[in-house]
Amino acid sequence: MKKLINAPDRVVTEALEGMAAAHPDLLTVHLDPAYIMRADAPVKGKAALVSGGGSGHEPMHGGYVGRGMLDAACPGAVFTSPTPDQILAATRAVTGEQGALHIVKNYTGDVMNFDMAADLAREEGLRLEAVIIDDDVAVKDSLYTAGRRGVGGTILAEKICGGAAEAGADLGSLARLCRDVNASVRSMGVALTSCTVPHVGKPSFELGEDEMEFGIGIHGEPGRKRVGMESADRIADMLMQPILEDLPFRRGDPVLLFVNGLGGTPLIELYIVYRAAHRIAQAHGLTVARSLVGSYITSLEMAGTSITLLRLTDEMTRYWDAPCVTPALRWGA
Amino acid sequence: MKKLINAPDRVVTEALEGMAAAHPDLLTVHLDPAYIMRADAPVKGKAALVSGGGSGHEPMHGGYVGRGMLDAACPGAVFTSPTPDQILAATRAVTGEQGALHIVKNYTGDVMNFDMAADLAREEGLRLEAVIIDDDVAVKDSLYTAGRRGVGGTILAEKICGGAAEAGADLGSLARLCRDVNASVRSMGVALTSCTVPHVGKPSFELGEDEMEFGIGIHGEPGRKRVGMESADRIADMLMQPILEDLPFRRGDPVLLFVNGLGGTPLIELYIVYRAAHRIAQAHGLTVARSLVGSYITSLEMAGTSITLLRLTDEMTRYWDAPCVTPALRWGA
Repeated sequence: MKKLINAPDRVVTEALEGMAAAHPDLLTVHLDPAYIMRADAPVKGKAALVSGGGSGHEPMHGGYVGRGMLDAACPGAVFTSPTPDQILAATRAVTGEQGALHIVKNYTGDVMNFDMAADLAREEGLRLEAVIIDDDVAVKDSLYTAGRRGVGGTILAEKICGGAAEAGADLGSLARLCRDVNASVRSMGVALTSCTVPHVGKPSFELGEDEMEFGIGIHGEPGRKRVGMESADRIADMLMQPILEDLPFRRGDPVLLFVNGLGGTPLIELYIVYRAAHRIAQAHGLTVARSLVGSYITSLEMAGTSITLLRLTDEMTRYWDAPCVTPALRWGA
Repeated sequence: MKKLINAPDRVVTEALEGMAAAHPDLLTVHLDPAYIMRADAPVKGKAALVSGGGSGHEPMHGGYVGRGMLDAACPGAVFTSPTPDQILAATRAVTGEQGALHIVKNYTGDVMNFDMAADLAREEGLRLEAVIIDDDVAVKDSLYTAGRRGVGGTILAEKICGGAAEAGADLGSLARLCRDVNASVRSMGVALTSCTVPHVGKPSFELGEDEMEFGIGIHGEPGRKRVGMESADRIADMLMQPILEDLPFRRGDPVLLFVNGLGGTPLIELYIVYRAAHRIAQAHGLTVARSLVGSYITSLEMAGTSITLLRLTDEMTRYWDAPCVTPALRWGA
């Protein structure tokens, strides 16, 4: 295991200290319990957005904390759910009279711990809503999930709801919008290599020189099947077809096409995948109205890609375009 | 070789087509000869900035084309200099009465071909200046270089000069500012793994399970020495000390600290390196005024990191902070 770390049990804490040092203008980082919040939170008159999950998926979620996106993120240990006390502390720190929305990826531990934290927060008098994201079409149940897993659609939900919250949407509207995004977004991924959890010290699974894991989960959970290596065009097609059929996406739909890298895949390859996915979307009659290409939800140093497709409403497009100022996504004023 | 590609000889063209499809609002892409330009170039009344170099370092340089940064970028084949006709065509396409500055990394082929293109452009009546970036302190001469190599400092020069050009700086001032940046910036990198050039099909070099190449070049050129694996803190120190001694950086200097990933290293590790580098800078008496953390100048899927340190003037800070709207760096209005 060759990693730029000091010790497996200090990975998350030291990365958080690095984030705090790099982005003092944007973030405040608490270490015990661990959470990252907007430097200016709680923002008066605004409903708060709180997310979180295991570490190892950076920049998700800490990299999306800032104006126009999340108010707080709770990083668990690598590939491990954050604890209820982390989530409660983060929620408390950023929530005012407008309440808070928990955006939760559908993994059993995450759902349970966010749920417990929400109950405790409500007992303290905070207004809480929660939306569960489950956009991965690869498998129905999985190693850590009952039902579908939450993956790349989470980032789109965070950005779009973040834009709405900044514009003054109330908690009920935010929860409704977040459910709308989840209902309109589908994803699927493929791994070319495994990854190594620091405290485990060896790869989570083994893949042969000519194999890929099709439908991979972001923690290295098994996907649909292990298949031989294919061209980028063929891989894009193998990912896009199940996505297109699932919603289903229909001729004329305006979409956001997001091609994501899993951590160890260089950007030049992601653009080759994007090219193919864009052509497939066009051939399906979709209008690709917005795009995102880069490594935004990762599995440590895993090589591979995932594709996320969101059917846009005018409301979603408006809040996608709204300014955001976070370490990992930043545009507008 | 497991890569998300279709064929080795189509990698650059297809990635460019992907960029064109993903960023139609920002970029116009020409394929033969290959160059990427601002969608609104030539910008009337503005001096143009043109850069380029081998592909495989994405997002450099094509990802930095846009308002507030480059007017055009010329991507060569992977790890291969762009040709004079590419550079000439790109320069012609974006250069108006205010002339153009070529920002050139110090590799023999790049310098020769940019020089030839500049001569041809001048014969056509264009005003041209060129600045060579050579910020890598690792080695004096190298596989593809006489003198020091140009690495991460290039991106800082492109952003800062891009801000100045947007604000109306004339060609002479831009060339002076670019030389100032180059004179004030130092870098060094380390590789944990090799990378595989698509048309070669096997790793450029071999590294043992417990080895790293210290002072690596961005094309996999040998560095200062091959050493055993170390902790992130120790690696940051091994990179920072030669950088600090070289300029030298002095107590009280305000600096921009840039921790870069080489393509296969996940962001969580870069923040651990950033934490260490920031502490070393502070212990040296420097004021870390600006930061950049991410994979901005890469070597395909190589695992590893480089550190770049720039001593800031007020002028540089102002133009670093100025708005830019490119695929890979985006902030402000």
